Amino acid sequence: MSRIVLYDLVGADDRRFSSHCWRIRPALAHKGLSFETVPTPFTSIPRIGDGSFPTLPVIRDGETWVCDSWAIAEYLETTYPDRPSLFGGAAGHALTAFVSQWWRTRLHLFVMPMILRDIHDHLVPEDKDWFAETRAKRFGNSIVALEKGREERRVELRERLGPLRQMLADQPFLGGAAPLYADYLVMGTFIWARKMSPFALVTPDDPIHAWMNRCLDLHDGAARSGPGFDW
Amino acid sequence: MSRIVLYDLVGADDRRFSSHCWRIRPALAHKGLSFETVPTPFTSIPRIGDGSFPTLPVIRDGETWVCDSWAIAEYLETTYPDRPSLFGGAAGHALTAFVSQWWRTRLHLFVMPMILRDIHDHLVPEDKDWFAETRAKRFGNSIVALEKGREERRVELRERLGPLRQMLADQPFLGGAAPLYADYLVMGTFIWARKMSPFALVTPDDPIHAWMNRCLDLHDGAARSGPGFDW
Repeated sequence: MSRIVLYDLVGADDRRFSSHCWRIRPALAHKGLSFETVPTPFTSIPRIGDGSFPTLPVIRDGETWVCDSWAIAEYLETTYPDRPSLFGGAAGHALTAFVSQWWRTRLHLFVMPMILRDIHDHLVPEDKDWFAETRAKRFGNSIVALEKGREERRVELRERLGPLRQMLADQPFLGGAAPLYADYLVMGTFIWARKMSPFALVTPDDPIHAWMNRCLDLHDGAARSGPGFDW
Repeated sequence: MSRIVLYDLVGADDRRFSSHCWRIRPALAHKGLSFETVPTPFTSIPRIGDGSFPTLPVIRDGETWVCDSWAIAEYLETTYPDRPSLFGGAAGHALTAFVSQWWRTRLHLFVMPMILRDIHDHLVPEDKDWFAETRAKRFGNSIVALEKGREERRVELRERLGPLRQMLADQPFLGGAAPLYADYLVMGTFIWARKMSPFALVTPDDPIHAWMNRCLDLHDGAARSGPGFDW
């Protein structure tokens, strides 16, 4: 079996910060698949493969290229069915799709404006202008302005995380006794933020903080390695 | 095998309106288990069995009594493992726990104050005063006052339903191609509201309305039968 190649978003000081790449790294480890990473700045994505990939992560597995974290997770599940499952069967797959939409609409898009400027500050130099311009366009304001008032928005964030917090009273992971792709999917946001921003999304008194630490410990603490912020 | 008895909350005109009982009725049908219901007003719950049950649903299966919808669903899954699964395995069970917390914290508790007065108006006479008093105490205001402004809150409800709506773009049920307990769990709120309130929680242009109708069609349209509101 060939070694899988993961094109992995990179910031300054080799910060591997992509929330979506940080779903695939633990997914590969979960499956027991060896892989190497190719650090890739935003502005180098068009040079991957045939130049058709719009976003990271992208993987190359032998002659097969796959782009998009959800598509990659499904590819790994169907291509390596005898390895530990990422979804836990058809029902787990379907319900993970709900978790994914909750994550996107309620969590990630809400957090993003709060830390865009921090992300910008820790990018490689050639990505900075491109990032500030594209994000300002997408969110309709400058990344400096978007950050303002984030302390107040963190109060709402705590409320938005309610379903996850309540669930953690009964089980240690979204996957139950052990993590599944649903955990990696949500956790990506926390790793991304910890790599790039000193603005703590959760406080140590929050059960979600303990879940975050359980996830950070997985696979020999891979998500703790390298520069970042320890909140 | 003895016929299972479901103690089922009842309002005026034999309205079977409990959101939580409406999780267990389709769960029993899903398992292919025959059952009979005992219509039970709120104020008659203390007379069930040994008088120890605080809420409905309660089931009696032979000599076994089980109270609480989640406990009943787990009981049915473990007691009848050869029947169609309600959870779809351990991962499905764990992820359904997340859906359950999302339903509770984001959906049901938000909708409840909007329709408490409508529920009151369709209760059996002996439940009305008890209901108005206990709900006013729980929510800190009269059921008439709690209803005020519900049209505005429905705008927020639409936003809160975002994760479900987005997921339905990719699959017809929370369970995937076919419904699972996660669907029954969320659907209970919609059946409950349709039985007791003319205030439509969703509009026909919403993909959630189509999902609701798919759920209403299940098991020979059981949830459509009897008096109620057709929105």
